[in-house]
Amino acid sequence: MARARHHLKGKVMSEPSANRKTLYIQDVAPRDGFQNEKQFIETQDKIDFINALSQSGYAKIEATSFTSPKAIPALRDAEVVMHEIVRNPDVIYTVLVPNVRGAQRALECNVDEVNLVMSVSETHNRANLRMTREQSFEQLSDVVSAVRGSRVAINVSLSTVFGCPMEGDINAFDVLELVGRFAALGVDGVTLCDTTGMAYPTQVGKIGREVRKLFPNLTTTMHFHNTRGMALANTLAALEAGIDRFDASLGGLGGCPYAPGASGNVCTEELVHMLELMGYDTGVDLTRILDIAATLPALVGHDIPSQILKAGPRLTLHPAPDQGA
Amino acid sequence: MARARHHLKGKVMSEPSANRKTLYIQDVAPRDGFQNEKQFIETQDKIDFINALSQSGYAKIEATSFTSPKAIPALRDAEVVMHEIVRNPDVIYTVLVPNVRGAQRALECNVDEVNLVMSVSETHNRANLRMTREQSFEQLSDVVSAVRGSRVAINVSLSTVFGCPMEGDINAFDVLELVGRFAALGVDGVTLCDTTGMAYPTQVGKIGREVRKLFPNLTTTMHFHNTRGMALANTLAALEAGIDRFDASLGGLGGCPYAPGASGNVCTEELVHMLELMGYDTGVDLTRILDIAATLPALVGHDIPSQILKAGPRLTLHPAPDQGA
Repeated sequence: MARARHHLKGKVMSEPSANRKTLYIQDVAPRDGFQNEKQFIETQDKIDFINALSQSGYAKIEATSFTSPKAIPALRDAEVVMHEIVRNPDVIYTVLVPNVRGAQRALECNVDEVNLVMSVSETHNRANLRMTREQSFEQLSDVVSAVRGSRVAINVSLSTVFGCPMEGDINAFDVLELVGRFAALGVDGVTLCDTTGMAYPTQVGKIGREVRKLFPNLTTTMHFHNTRGMALANTLAALEAGIDRFDASLGGLGGCPYAPGASGNVCTEELVHMLELMGYDTGVDLTRILDIAATLPALVGHDIPSQILKAGPRLTLHPAPDQGA
Repeated sequence: MARARHHLKGKVMSEPSANRKTLYIQDVAPRDGFQNEKQFIETQDKIDFINALSQSGYAKIEATSFTSPKAIPALRDAEVVMHEIVRNPDVIYTVLVPNVRGAQRALECNVDEVNLVMSVSETHNRANLRMTREQSFEQLSDVVSAVRGSRVAINVSLSTVFGCPMEGDINAFDVLELVGRFAALGVDGVTLCDTTGMAYPTQVGKIGREVRKLFPNLTTTMHFHNTRGMALANTLAALEAGIDRFDASLGGLGGCPYAPGASGNVCTEELVHMLELMGYDTGVDLTRILDIAATLPALVGHDIPSQILKAGPRLTLHPAPDQGA
């Protein structure tokens, strides 16, 4: 998972620091973002977008989903996308896989990682995946069996870890138990997803510390949504708990289906902007991803929730009014 | 400054906690928000709005500004507003005052506090106040002389503490020096303002700790803008530095003049929502202020940046899709 990324660095935004801690930023916009767009994003546009992200210093890119084209027509071009993108060997290309059939398709495309998804909440799992949690776990266990032993890594993304929009609070024990069951199957990583923006900092700290303590060999990612404005505050709490991997979505693509008009995924550019200012080494070239983000409104056909795209990075200077014409 | 506020508490949102730390929330929407609205807010609407805030558990409300009606016509009704609101004795009513004339008008209205404003940045001070910093300091010193000795408290809000949109970085020493000069004049409190959303958490922690250490007798407030999405993350950093007072603006009223479309003041409801979830006692009744915030789009004639107003508080539950009709 080494990244020869430093040659990519553009303008240095952060405070000089001799020992900058390395963080890993993973963009989910090509999957989680494009999947939620009503208008089909043309295959070539997807490929160009992923190719641009590939040159921006990410640790991982979630490129597409090997679900049924009927279930998710927005990503019906998964094979073409995976075959035609120009891969950067320093980037892990992960894809969402719901079942053994999807895993086979993904393996044929030579992906680096498969990402399996289920909910901690029984109600959300039934609503979202039309199965009980036990049925989901069984199906995903079959995927693990099919993939384990190959060179392809396995990550599990758990939805509604910090709350369910239908059930409310989720018992942290249920989260830890489910992580433990997947750890026992031998998966490489787990992503704790705040699916609808219900996480808050003290809760993130607690769950983050517990998962790190109980499963130190699992690569742990936090996936925050900014639905209630707390994504960056939750990131601070996760950092304090020792988490160093974060999902984010360029431009904040991927809204919240339960709250029309509200934000969904945390914006990658807002996350990177804050972390670099704090002296962390995210590897991501902020100038470069801002240029890519600026192309998104035309690509998706609507305004995007990125604040940084509107306001510019912190040191974007403005002329004094009395110096103007 | 005691507040008999607990009878105001509505739904308890937060985790149960035996020793909840008290925080002080100060709403600036009637001044900082309404001042930035292009359309004049009717005087009676202002009064009704402040009266509603007064019953919501705030520590302080910035009610209006005693500036020249020509300079800020949006608040030309300052006297009427201050005379006609129904004051809650547990709330401190503060008003912005630019000079001795403004202070006299404020004192005649029996305000609890005057709030003086100048910038740490020379360029911003000239652009915003049409004076050098020294001229501003002199003018505000005269206000302090005029008010000191009365029962009216004196707060100083320093703009661009965390960065200037024209100069860029601001030397922390300049901030501390200016705070020190006002402390020497005998003011009661100082507000460190992130005027255009340039603050970031590590910076907030450093400056917050320094001000607390050097000026332990000054009541210190943090005033964050969410221009680049970091307001709540900065709040966490301020809390860790020992800060317990926060300005905020209901609905996030008060945009950023340098970034059209970007957020300005942090939303009170987003701030209170996070802090109560973390177990702090803000005193503010979230249900009540959300009801008031819901009236703002009609009052100001445009959408407001509040995420919580769109998504609801964290435990706003939704029916499962397959339970629907």
